[in-house]
Amino acid sequence: MDRRKFVSTLGLGVAGTALAGCAQSDCAGPSADAGSADANKTYHWKMVTTWPKNYPGLGTGPEKFAKMVNTMSAGRITIKVYGAKELVPAMEVFDAVSQGSAELGHGAAYYWKGKHPATPFFTAVPFGFTAQEMNSWLSYGGGQQLWDELYEGFNLKPFACGNTGTQLPGWYNREINSVSDLAGLKIRMPGLAGEVLKRLGATPVQLPGGEVFTALESGAIDAADWVGPYNDLTFGFYKVAKYYYHPGWHEPGPTLELIMNNEVWNALPEDLQAIVRAAAAWANDDMLSEYTARNNAALIDLQEKHGVQLRRLPDDVLKALKKESDIVLDELTRDNPFARRVFDSYQTFRAGVSSYSNVAEAEYLAVRAALAE
Amino acid sequence: MDRRKFVSTLGLGVAGTALAGCAQSDCAGPSADAGSADANKTYHWKMVTTWPKNYPGLGTGPEKFAKMVNTMSAGRITIKVYGAKELVPAMEVFDAVSQGSAELGHGAAYYWKGKHPATPFFTAVPFGFTAQEMNSWLSYGGGQQLWDELYEGFNLKPFACGNTGTQLPGWYNREINSVSDLAGLKIRMPGLAGEVLKRLGATPVQLPGGEVFTALESGAIDAADWVGPYNDLTFGFYKVAKYYYHPGWHEPGPTLELIMNNEVWNALPEDLQAIVRAAAAWANDDMLSEYTARNNAALIDLQEKHGVQLRRLPDDVLKALKKESDIVLDELTRDNPFARRVFDSYQTFRAGVSSYSNVAEAEYLAVRAALAE
Repeated sequence: MDRRKFVSTLGLGVAGTALAGCAQSDCAGPSADAGSADANKTYHWKMVTTWPKNYPGLGTGPEKFAKMVNTMSAGRITIKVYGAKELVPAMEVFDAVSQGSAELGHGAAYYWKGKHPATPFFTAVPFGFTAQEMNSWLSYGGGQQLWDELYEGFNLKPFACGNTGTQLPGWYNREINSVSDLAGLKIRMPGLAGEVLKRLGATPVQLPGGEVFTALESGAIDAADWVGPYNDLTFGFYKVAKYYYHPGWHEPGPTLELIMNNEVWNALPEDLQAIVRAAAAWANDDMLSEYTARNNAALIDLQEKHGVQLRRLPDDVLKALKKESDIVLDELTRDNPFARRVFDSYQTFRAGVSSYSNVAEAEYLAVRAALAE
Repeated sequence: MDRRKFVSTLGLGVAGTALAGCAQSDCAGPSADAGSADANKTYHWKMVTTWPKNYPGLGTGPEKFAKMVNTMSAGRITIKVYGAKELVPAMEVFDAVSQGSAELGHGAAYYWKGKHPATPFFTAVPFGFTAQEMNSWLSYGGGQQLWDELYEGFNLKPFACGNTGTQLPGWYNREINSVSDLAGLKIRMPGLAGEVLKRLGATPVQLPGGEVFTALESGAIDAADWVGPYNDLTFGFYKVAKYYYHPGWHEPGPTLELIMNNEVWNALPEDLQAIVRAAAAWANDDMLSEYTARNNAALIDLQEKHGVQLRRLPDDVLKALKKESDIVLDELTRDNPFARRVFDSYQTFRAGVSSYSNVAEAEYLAVRAALAE
């Protein structure tokens, strides 16, 4: 399906309403001086998110972004952050910001695969980019331009605004020693990675994070992916599943997104646009730094206090996962020219960045690990 | 030597002069309204750097930072960036900002090892942090607090403001097959890594980047480290040295620093402090993204167009380098309680972050590389 046709089918591009609401008496209205640099104009925005209010990392990230924007703008912008369901359900964040019932949103692009098949590339795809590579593709590999182009059709302006780093593919109550061990397993694994597992005989199950523990405990599911040690520890999965698997083939460096209603964005003066942009970049790194520090502390807790057993997926399983991942990505983008353009850009950059990483970051980390033993 | 004694010996903490110069007629002077939020006050700053003006990556980074601050502050802050020697020589940047002849500086903390032995930990040490790990240590591992404490004694406020990613340890005109092959080699390698090479029988040579090509060509040196493919390609080292070695044991993720005169910093209103902080974070990631993208493109050029031969340092050489690196860091910090505190913090965080990286980023990258073959 052609992207333009797809977009116009949805009837997007309509003018937002109730945007950039202003409670100040000296404020003439949201679009009265759009684009001008009236230093006294104030903006009071709503930010809807796909996370529980203040959920560690994912949910505290947008709160920090909001505070940073408020401080940098000397109070000219205030942002009230809403957790999922407080204003709209998690899966309606995209539409709410697109249509203008909220000025801002925070979530992950791959939640909107039903809107357009190219969206997963802007969060994470199986065997895709690490956080550092994703940031580089966005800024210097053409990724941000593609993302802008895609979201413009939905009346949105996107920014990278958080990253969990390499996740772990989850908790299993039995060992995986070969591909056949996946057959028949019910695994909480969303998105494209779930589709990959399905092709290897497993049954992917979609469940909100808050329901995963009970489902594992009751045996309704046999395995579950969530995020990584920091978030997984607080959910207590170690109490109901024995084995914690690595490496994170499914989400090697997922980017969280800030989305802004495009009319609100376009009406901002240049200084406030730059403030939003820099605050997103600051929050993008801040979240990755937080996960990097806290995942390691949590992993030590899981192993030393809770007796969690780490297990590496066997090579033949990883090989099968890679093979099916390539097929899934090909099928995802085959019939959509824009999605194929994104996939081509992604693949080209991945091949190049890997050639340097393999003698730089990747090899250095391997050597350091070997010498620490 | 005790840090406080060390600092007071230098007579630091004196009031800066000629700071926060203001050309506007409505400006009462640099400290007249220190800390207040006078929205009309303007700031015209000088930024001295240790790089040639607009040197790709290292030198363009501070230019972008300056522009971002100017845009975010709607012109209230203007920063004029000076290349090395334009205002002061590279190695006088630290003193110039400390004493207030410039408000800002950009360089690398390990250039100031003569000021204090703890400084290298805030750039890079052999077998230390990658960029992602360094950012995490600074923000969530206590690193920034230690850096602030160290630099406060020099009347400076430091920020991470750029990273080259994992560098390559350089160009050799002969192969290194064992530790004994290093004996007698004259190697352009600065800092602690040079000291490590010295203990393995090599002679470290200090040379500015611009003199490295001629020294290699004439045989005055046998090998040279510079940065990585992107910068090394432009210097043409491939014309005079055949082998390009990896991995980057010497500088796995060097952080570039923004330094600000502490009185200028303390006199800023909260919004402008936040703007400087976020612009530094933005520039910190932007430079890493640029190097990540351009190193890979340059490496392909070097191999495909210029016939460069990549060589991996043998395991026994890496093992010897690691052993000597541990000794060099121990000796560096042994007699200075503050430097030892920094080293302890660094080591503790490195051990923890490695335990997660080894099942996350590091293992993922290794698996992806293996499956791409």
